[in-house]
Amino acid sequence: MSAETIDHLTANGVGENLAHPNPPVQDLDASKLRIELTKNPRTVPKLKSDETWSCKACTDHMVKVNWLEGKGWGVPEVVPYGPLTMMPTASCLHYATQCFEGMKVYRGFDGKLRLFRPDRNCARLMSSAVRVALPAFDPLELEKLIKALMKVDGAKWLPESQPGNFLYLRPAMTGNGEQLGVTAPSEVLLFIIAVPWPDISTGWNPSSTGAPKPPGLKLLTSQNDTRAWPGGFDNAKVGAKYGPAFVATMEGRKKEAGASNFFVVWKTKDGRLELITAPLDDKIILDGVTRRSVLDLARERFVASSEYLNSDVKSLDVVERTYTMAEVEEAQNDGRIIEAFVSGTAYFITPVSAINFRDAEMSIPMAGGDSGHYARIVKKWLLDIKYGNVSHKCGVVVGED
Amino acid sequence: MSAETIDHLTANGVGENLAHPNPPVQDLDASKLRIELTKNPRTVPKLKSDETWSCKACTDHMVKVNWLEGKGWGVPEVVPYGPLTMMPTASCLHYATQCFEGMKVYRGFDGKLRLFRPDRNCARLMSSAVRVALPAFDPLELEKLIKALMKVDGAKWLPESQPGNFLYLRPAMTGNGEQLGVTAPSEVLLFIIAVPWPDISTGWNPSSTGAPKPPGLKLLTSQNDTRAWPGGFDNAKVGAKYGPAFVATMEGRKKEAGASNFFVVWKTKDGRLELITAPLDDKIILDGVTRRSVLDLARERFVASSEYLNSDVKSLDVVERTYTMAEVEEAQNDGRIIEAFVSGTAYFITPVSAINFRDAEMSIPMAGGDSGHYARIVKKWLLDIKYGNVSHKCGVVVGED
Repeated sequence: MSAETIDHLTANGVGENLAHPNPPVQDLDASKLRIELTKNPRTVPKLKSDETWSCKACTDHMVKVNWLEGKGWGVPEVVPYGPLTMMPTASCLHYATQCFEGMKVYRGFDGKLRLFRPDRNCARLMSSAVRVALPAFDPLELEKLIKALMKVDGAKWLPESQPGNFLYLRPAMTGNGEQLGVTAPSEVLLFIIAVPWPDISTGWNPSSTGAPKPPGLKLLTSQNDTRAWPGGFDNAKVGAKYGPAFVATMEGRKKEAGASNFFVVWKTKDGRLELITAPLDDKIILDGVTRRSVLDLARERFVASSEYLNSDVKSLDVVERTYTMAEVEEAQNDGRIIEAFVSGTAYFITPVSAINFRDAEMSIPMAGGDSGHYARIVKKWLLDIKYGNVSHKCGVVVGED
Repeated sequence: MSAETIDHLTANGVGENLAHPNPPVQDLDASKLRIELTKNPRTVPKLKSDETWSCKACTDHMVKVNWLEGKGWGVPEVVPYGPLTMMPTASCLHYATQCFEGMKVYRGFDGKLRLFRPDRNCARLMSSAVRVALPAFDPLELEKLIKALMKVDGAKWLPESQPGNFLYLRPAMTGNGEQLGVTAPSEVLLFIIAVPWPDISTGWNPSSTGAPKPPGLKLLTSQNDTRAWPGGFDNAKVGAKYGPAFVATMEGRKKEAGASNFFVVWKTKDGRLELITAPLDDKIILDGVTRRSVLDLARERFVASSEYLNSDVKSLDVVERTYTMAEVEEAQNDGRIIEAFVSGTAYFITPVSAINFRDAEMSIPMAGGDSGHYARIVKKWLLDIKYGNVSHKCGVVVGED
């Protein structure tokens, strides 16, 4: 379904201009999966250990599938985790023909393994891929491959005896090949790896930083490095969005935020209660899976006569529109800010305690102590779905033998 | 000189926060070079062959140098050309922590090998590296490594018997390592490869496209995909600039332009003759080595009483300022456009015969037939320097045994 859309004429005319008389192209097909089990099992790091915090301890296996121009997707394989080889000319090393997804697999309190809305991540990987001239695929087949990897590694790396934990999953695609020209890659690798990951929504690793768990996140707004712009590609999860932002990221400590969506609960000037976040229209905001879930659940449950309302949690309007830091600052000065939080796969739902804006720090209320009331309730809703405390269409069970 | 500036605190707090009490860090040192010659020599493709046009036929050897956090640069090596291995977690595969240079090495008509202003490319690679959280290095040492590679491969791949030819050189840096967290890479590879490359400034490859050599380049201006924006990173030669642009690149045939700088020779409304190009101030224009050389030579030689002036070539003002397609269109309608051309390592100096703007094609004069007069004379100046017809400080000889 993809090779036909890739034309090999290039920015500078360099590269082979092959004729493509609509050759039969093989779509991604998880039913062809081959499995080669490792002979050198790896050690599962202890929960909350330094090793978990290092984000290096990948599970025993990985999924690999190659795509070739004119032929399409090859046979998917579960193979022992190990190094990739690629030519120094590989497109992904020079031109950032690469994209990835971040998602998690959860061991539920009912003993089951679950993914959270995996269809969203799989569809987004495909749209990111097409954005950087990588081939398309059937997202449902990718979801099957993710499940297949977890069927192999889930029992050992997320044991039933330790419910309430998760692994981080990283499906990724890279452009390869032997041709250095500025053109769409003629060879592509799709791979999926899984790695134990710290729960950063619950605080920092004490043994590495020596710092106490912070009460909430402090956000920094940067005025120098532009990470998102209309007509850009910030709505795609492509490598190009990240590397150039690392320098801004590292300029100082506690300048967090990164790949999250930002929400504010405030009172409008005319006294309405509102949950606001930036819209997707301009394509400068990542269409976050957690973001979307927060909006969906809030629209469904923060309504009049809902069982979830109480003296601290009232019904509110859920609004997606462009708003500025100046508006946040004005609301802050008027005392209209109720709370703020970020959402994302890494941060999950993390309350925001302060925003650094124009070199001044704006303190954000956390009426519930270590979290605002809305952030806390939204977080619980999502946890209940992910860990199987409630049955919900967004929690997708991974079948295990 | 670099590790001290890299702080390991990250966007999301994930990753080891190692203390760096200013450890001794080894700078890049070409004098430590080790050379391992290949036992499987590769075949040099014929000039103008399909193989040359495929941009795949790398030379026998490559340079590799590893950098490790806290240790700095390791021993540079010339090794047989071959695949790289990297962990699936390698930073460059996910976050575009990568940058590169494009430059050429020329076999002169005096029998000598030359680089053209290599100091510029080496300095730019370093500034690109720092832009994407990769380590710095002494650019002079990189230049020595480039020369060392050419000392090994130059005689065979650019034989003295075939003066007037060149190889394309690709120094590149990639972030590696075993850690998946969103952070500066703890391991980095610098490598240099060389590949026979078609001379696209002289036209298309007849055997691949069947198309005749075009009389000049047709440029397309895109209004959809934004490749450059103030505060972005388009002035750095980083992978992130390329992959996301491939889709725009490939939307149709003959939509060329890509990584070039654009020049117009026109008459201003008050009748002055001007060579104009966009400025570097906004950081949206690549600080092209060819661009800079065109400006330098034009300022030096297109002046009153210059020996280079004649009835077609007058003295002119050289101007770097922001100008718009609307201005070009107006000048075109007034008949004030003299000619236009692009400059770049790939295109060298290539005349522009038409510009596609707002779905209409604007025909640009080429008074000299297949090129404007100014483009032709600038091109000759540069060729004379590159191929040793004249001695000039920009032509740097590579010592061969």
